[in-house]
Amino acid sequence: EEQPSGPRGQDSMWRNEKYETVPLDVKEIDEGNSKGTRDSLYPQTAVNERPKDAKLWPYFQDGLRRIDYVLTYHVQKPQSTHKQSSKSCLCCGFRREQKNLPAHEDPELAAQEQRLDYHEDDQRLRREEFEENLREMGLEMEKEEGTKLPGVGFLKIHAPWDVLCREAEFMKLKMPTIKVYCLINQGSSIAEKVNVFIQKVTAPLQPNVGENQTENEKPLSYPFSREKQHLMYVILVLSLQILYEQWASYSIFYKYQPIGLVRKYFGEKVGLYFAWLGVYTQMLIPAAIVGVIVFLYGCATVDDNIPSMEVCDERNNITMCPMCDRACSYWKLVTACGTARASHLFDNAATVFFAIFMALWATMFMEHWKRRQMRLNYIWDLTSFEDAESHPRAEYEFHVMKKSLKKEQSPKVVSVAKLFDYKSIFLFCSFVCSMQIFVTLAIVFGVVLYRVSIMTALHMSSTPTFRTNIRATVKTTAAIINLIIIIIMDEVYGAIARWLTIMEVPKTDKSFEERLIFKTFILKFANAFTPIVYLAFFRGRIIGRPGKYLYVMGSYRMEECAHAGCLMELCIQLCITMLGKQLIQNNLFEIGVPKLKKMLRQRKIDKKHQEELNKTLHRHEKDHFLGPFVGLNPEYMEMIIQFGMVTLFVASFPLAPLFALLNNVIEIRLDAKKFVTELRRPIAVRAKDIGVWYTLLRGISKVAVIVNAFVISFTSDFIPRLVYQHMYSADGTLHGFVNHTLSYFNVSHFQPGTEPMQPMHLGYKVEVCRYKDYRDPPWSATPYEFSREFWAILAARLAFVIVFQNVVMLMSDFVDWLIPDIPKDISIQIHKERNLIVELFMKEERGKKYRNTIGDPSPQPLRSRPSSQA
Amino acid sequence: EEQPSGPRGQDSMWRNEKYETVPLDVKEIDEGNSKGTRDSLYPQTAVNERPKDAKLWPYFQDGLRRIDYVLTYHVQKPQSTHKQSSKSCLCCGFRREQKNLPAHEDPELAAQEQRLDYHEDDQRLRREEFEENLREMGLEMEKEEGTKLPGVGFLKIHAPWDVLCREAEFMKLKMPTIKVYCLINQGSSIAEKVNVFIQKVTAPLQPNVGENQTENEKPLSYPFSREKQHLMYVILVLSLQILYEQWASYSIFYKYQPIGLVRKYFGEKVGLYFAWLGVYTQMLIPAAIVGVIVFLYGCATVDDNIPSMEVCDERNNITMCPMCDRACSYWKLVTACGTARASHLFDNAATVFFAIFMALWATMFMEHWKRRQMRLNYIWDLTSFEDAESHPRAEYEFHVMKKSLKKEQSPKVVSVAKLFDYKSIFLFCSFVCSMQIFVTLAIVFGVVLYRVSIMTALHMSSTPTFRTNIRATVKTTAAIINLIIIIIMDEVYGAIARWLTIMEVPKTDKSFEERLIFKTFILKFANAFTPIVYLAFFRGRIIGRPGKYLYVMGSYRMEECAHAGCLMELCIQLCITMLGKQLIQNNLFEIGVPKLKKMLRQRKIDKKHQEELNKTLHRHEKDHFLGPFVGLNPEYMEMIIQFGMVTLFVASFPLAPLFALLNNVIEIRLDAKKFVTELRRPIAVRAKDIGVWYTLLRGISKVAVIVNAFVISFTSDFIPRLVYQHMYSADGTLHGFVNHTLSYFNVSHFQPGTEPMQPMHLGYKVEVCRYKDYRDPPWSATPYEFSREFWAILAARLAFVIVFQNVVMLMSDFVDWLIPDIPKDISIQIHKERNLIVELFMKEERGKKYRNTIGDPSPQPLRSRPSSQA
Repeated sequence: EEQPSGPRGQDSMWRNEKYETVPLDVKEIDEGNSKGTRDSLYPQTAVNERPKDAKLWPYFQDGLRRIDYVLTYHVQKPQSTHKQSSKSCLCCGFRREQKNLPAHEDPELAAQEQRLDYHEDDQRLRREEFEENLREMGLEMEKEEGTKLPGVGFLKIHAPWDVLCREAEFMKLKMPTIKVYCLINQGSSIAEKVNVFIQKVTAPLQPNVGENQTENEKPLSYPFSREKQHLMYVILVLSLQILYEQWASYSIFYKYQPIGLVRKYFGEKVGLYFAWLGVYTQMLIPAAIVGVIVFLYGCATVDDNIPSMEVCDERNNITMCPMCDRACSYWKLVTACGTARASHLFDNAATVFFAIFMALWATMFMEHWKRRQMRLNYIWDLTSFEDAESHPRAEYEFHVMKKSLKKEQSPKVVSVAKLFDYKSIFLFCSFVCSMQIFVTLAIVFGVVLYRVSIMTALHMSSTPTFRTNIRATVKTTAAIINLIIIIIMDEVYGAIARWLTIMEVPKTDKSFEERLIFKTFILKFANAFTPIVYLAFFRGRIIGRPGKYLYVMGSYRMEECAHAGCLMELCIQLCITMLGKQLIQNNLFEIGVPKLKKMLRQRKIDKKHQEELNKTLHRHEKDHFLGPFVGLNPEYMEMIIQFGMVTLFVASFPLAPLFALLNNVIEIRLDAKKFVTELRRPIAVRAKDIGVWYTLLRGISKVAVIVNAFVISFTSDFIPRLVYQHMYSADGTLHGFVNHTLSYFNVSHFQPGTEPMQPMHLGYKVEVCRYKDYRDPPWSATPYEFSREFWAILAARLAFVIVFQNVVMLMSDFVDWLIPDIPKDISIQIHKERNLIVELFMKEERGKKYRNTIGDPSPQPLRSRPSSQA
Repeated sequence: EEQPSGPRGQDSMWRNEKYETVPLDVKEIDEGNSKGTRDSLYPQTAVNERPKDAKLWPYFQDGLRRIDYVLTYHVQKPQSTHKQSSKSCLCCGFRREQKNLPAHEDPELAAQEQRLDYHEDDQRLRREEFEENLREMGLEMEKEEGTKLPGVGFLKIHAPWDVLCREAEFMKLKMPTIKVYCLINQGSSIAEKVNVFIQKVTAPLQPNVGENQTENEKPLSYPFSREKQHLMYVILVLSLQILYEQWASYSIFYKYQPIGLVRKYFGEKVGLYFAWLGVYTQMLIPAAIVGVIVFLYGCATVDDNIPSMEVCDERNNITMCPMCDRACSYWKLVTACGTARASHLFDNAATVFFAIFMALWATMFMEHWKRRQMRLNYIWDLTSFEDAESHPRAEYEFHVMKKSLKKEQSPKVVSVAKLFDYKSIFLFCSFVCSMQIFVTLAIVFGVVLYRVSIMTALHMSSTPTFRTNIRATVKTTAAIINLIIIIIMDEVYGAIARWLTIMEVPKTDKSFEERLIFKTFILKFANAFTPIVYLAFFRGRIIGRPGKYLYVMGSYRMEECAHAGCLMELCIQLCITMLGKQLIQNNLFEIGVPKLKKMLRQRKIDKKHQEELNKTLHRHEKDHFLGPFVGLNPEYMEMIIQFGMVTLFVASFPLAPLFALLNNVIEIRLDAKKFVTELRRPIAVRAKDIGVWYTLLRGISKVAVIVNAFVISFTSDFIPRLVYQHMYSADGTLHGFVNHTLSYFNVSHFQPGTEPMQPMHLGYKVEVCRYKDYRDPPWSATPYEFSREFWAILAARLAFVIVFQNVVMLMSDFVDWLIPDIPKDISIQIHKERNLIVELFMKEERGKKYRNTIGDPSPQPLRSRPSSQA
């Protein structure tokens, strides 16, 4: 009978048979560790130069125990009643997951302090209770109250080695072992050569962080275990200086980011954000190139475009109906020649191709990111990591506590409290959100009114030279007004979403974040896209017809589009929104405001002491002046809105990917700079994926298909041209198309008081004028009814939407199915790792058998699995 | 310094603090185990009655070692050159995953034997090598060659306890421990009461297997470990008799299935199939009820339906154009009264509602299944189970070997071999598949031709009474012919798909199965649905118009639909296909053929010995006569096709869910009977989900949305009625609708030779006849062109498709988002289990600290996590 054998045997097997023993005992590794991370703390000083003052080092007063984490709090000052408690993680070093211990309880205390206006003493008692809890966990602490910075206390925390080990083991943290194996190069020799070639070509694009040499080697990872710690790597030399030079610099904008280092310093969640941003930016390159080609195609074919030639041809003596009541008169179509030519740049056959291309591009991007994420998961040893349920938030527990307290005190209040229960709060939130969207609509309508009224007013003025520039001026100012409103409302909506979510009191941090993102997304998205949607789908469609115009606010006629359609104006609006939003938000909100805040924070200190202080201040005291880390949500949100701009209306603006690309190249380095120099080091958080953002991206790329289908078929003139060519054209060309799109109006049918004041403006008497619509002529049996052409073209437009949507969705699904979610080489490597562990297990088995059953006559190996590493 | 402590301490902690010790040593548990499973082997004998003959027991000759697995093979008979090697798993008992050891190599050998026509001796050598490998793994064997059954050898295998343990530990098989905890009843007291009420109501529906008492208790599971085996349950009392009585019986058709038992006996994969079938059948109940209500609504409103009243009204003296050239004459619309009334049963306003309902139903079903699957994963302890990469298939390795052999022998052949490389094989497969689909189309066209020609021939005959029944007769016979062809081609296509997949030589079993399923699905789906798609979308649409009909095959006019549309015929076709397919396939293929095969297999034995043999035969020898288990794919495929029938054209046939429900109630028990009594016990396979079938189901429910949108808008008259009511009707009702749908034809415009031979058939001279289409009248400027109404209705139809598709897709996504994938109680339980393990870990930590640092001044617990089990 085989006896259960203790792991002591297993242990010796590991040490003797599989691994070399490292001649460092635990203490020495700890020392090495702290020496290694020491460099990371002074980005401003050179790496090898050590400052003289020992006090500047992040160590306790004894100079032995390293500071792993610093908490700050306000100490009693008679004049201050407002409490503040902020935290900064200076050098969490190798075990960043400490967050699970103290960091979580700190904001709880802070929040409770803020809410309940308890006595100062009470707060100190609470702090002491909290510190006692930390001490029970095995952490060591040192206090420093108001020594240099008045009113600020620091609680410096050191996590001893055995506490770190305990937690690592408890979390089954996967650690790289000493055993390194080479990543295999699967595939034929050609694939290998291509790979080598690609590596050589992209070599100058790689950041110079001394990590690439070992790219095709990976240490075998294994859940941390104290018994096997001699096998684990624990040395993590990481310098912020490298990140500063190789990541947060504009001069290396063309290089890949050192994502591995970013992840090591800032944690997986931040690492994933920058990896995602990198993939997105990289994927924008082909989209931008194709977009530019499509645009150039439009430029090149503008002279061959028959409809714009017909508009510009003086011989086609077409008299158009007036643009406004009374003040305006009849006009010649030839004056719209410029707009018609410009429209062709964005409204041509290549646009349809580009819309399909971008829909597939979005799918490819999602797939590419899934694969990249999978690869990072593998490299970062997250494959078996599972998101644990997070603890209830302090606010939630406080809310529950308060409710139960109230219940005890006065049972009658309960019924009132129930009114403010979750459901009513949910309803309230929905109500506020709908209100906000209504406000957005109202604003858009306001801008429309502005345009209409200014246009009418300008038409009234009789300066003819002024009048020619009317349209362009009003369009541009309206777009800029829209932009400014969007930017202002963006901030307002962000605040409203946060306020609503706090009202809801979600149970966990995760649900808090999800709800906040959801609300912010809906509000900001509506804010950014309502004006664009109006331009694309409503403008010029609800104007009525000559003799029966639609009036708003009494006497204003609704806006018409130019003869060549509204695509041009949509394009201008998109261009201004994208460029303006990015420029203003990047410069003002991401650079200007943080700088301003930092200055304000420093100004609290007396100015005369400031320079002196700067020299003697400890690292953690200096970091106190940095801005707190507010999460990645604003960064993601900005990018998601941009992704919406790039995909949703790409059919009308093929240069959008180019603008986005230019912005993102800067954005990456800007964000990197902010993370490295402007913000306190965030608490490292493990994450396997980008969470709810992926769902939102997917949603946008789905909506993009249908929106683009509608833009092509309804906003552009693509379908009418196609129908004309195949159903009505005599010779199969577009000759006569312009005439076909214009209906006839008998000027005697004007409503009284709306006919032009200067009917002879063109020099001859007009009896029949033309307008852009498909309606029966005045002399038919059904004058001004929608004509057969109208219905045929409408049917064609709708059929195109159906075909486009389903074909593109099918193609997207096909691409999705075609590209495996897990890259081939990663799946092979995972398989290989599993085999290595099988091998270990086999050896262990054999060892056991030898030891336990010495009298065994058959000393064969127990398992002889076929070696499938071929 | 804390020293790494051996798990001996851990062990004692487990035993002493958390668990009771079981007073059974390893040997005893083994005994108990075999005693427990003993019952499972005699479904035909009562549970407690033990047969006298010890030889009948599945033990080795020594009567001690149990037979866990039996392999059979052909022994040398001079007359037989064809080799056969089949396997049957009699009683894999507690450790069914043995399959990983021998079963995998058995078919390899078998296949290699089949392919290479090696010498008999060579085969024996190979077998011996194989047996040697098994022995090396620690398995024990006994041979039995041709004792009772001539030409058949049995290799009986016994897996000793320590081999089982080793494998269980290696696979980290999660086993239930002795520690049982109560499942919590979360939620308010009302929810609890509702739950109790539901349990009481459904109590008579629960199968009587003695498992339900412990439903709200679940043992804490933990990966199997030899050191902790005293903590594990290993006793698995399972009797096939219970399955036979409580599962495989028609009399309990209304009860839930004992899925837990099914899974224990047949393994997770089979368990999941029956669980899925159960969920599907259950979900069909509401669909069937709503379908019946919709149908009844149609029946109830048939007399209030204005269009059919108008058709049936004798006063509307409408003369229709002839149905065929020359032989047919003009006819009165009133003769189509019956069809018009019948059409209303399936073509009314409720149909649209039902189509939306069924689209949401499909989403709900998918969601419900996801949750059920998650629940089963949790109950069956599969949450952390990961599908391992499977080994390469024997055929693949043989193929690779052959190729490399050829390379060595004659380097010139390589270039030829490359021609038959994967890519060319892939192309070949695609080609064959397209060919098959082309064949299907050809068959459909053939049936159409049959209908057309028979109709024409029958019209020629001058028996008037006969002629009235023409339509019904031809429709029905054509539908039956279609059905027969579908059933025959189903089998043919199955064989072709298998043949193609074998040609492809996929690398692993998994990819083999996936490719086979994919091909079979495409072929069978095309086969089943092409006639239906033709009826729904093409029939009656490509007929031309009077005076300019479309002719096929020389002189046959394409089929027209009845005046009320083709929906009626679509409905008949669906009804016949569903009922006929299910009846014939169930009765003939699932009951008849297996019985026949079994009889054939038994007839090989001399008949005179047969009865005598039956008495003395061992269990495994009897099982040799059972059919081999051929996988679940045919079962799934049948259900998927049915799911397609239920969802894809449900707009035209609201009774489909009812038919499917009736079929499935029988199908479950039929399959159960087959598994319990007709087939050899399949090798138990672990699986977390139903794999590729889920993807196919999702695909079908997506396609269903668009198909139903088209059926409603194009096949039914729903949209024309709507448009008439809102655009053309004088009083907003449907009065005059029938007249509106009929165009005018001047009989003088007939092509020469096509005018009716008996123009005076109706008793008066016809000058203008009517036909169903929207075309301009002969007296307009554009005679017989599509009218404005045609285009308006077409636009409305297309708009409806867009709206329907997107609204239903949005609603589906919303439902998908609304229902969490993991049931709330399961996620709470998983959380609780994790907490229990945390607790264990904490206790262990504390124990260690006490032992290792005795002089510790603070004997507090190391961790004081807030108890979050609230």
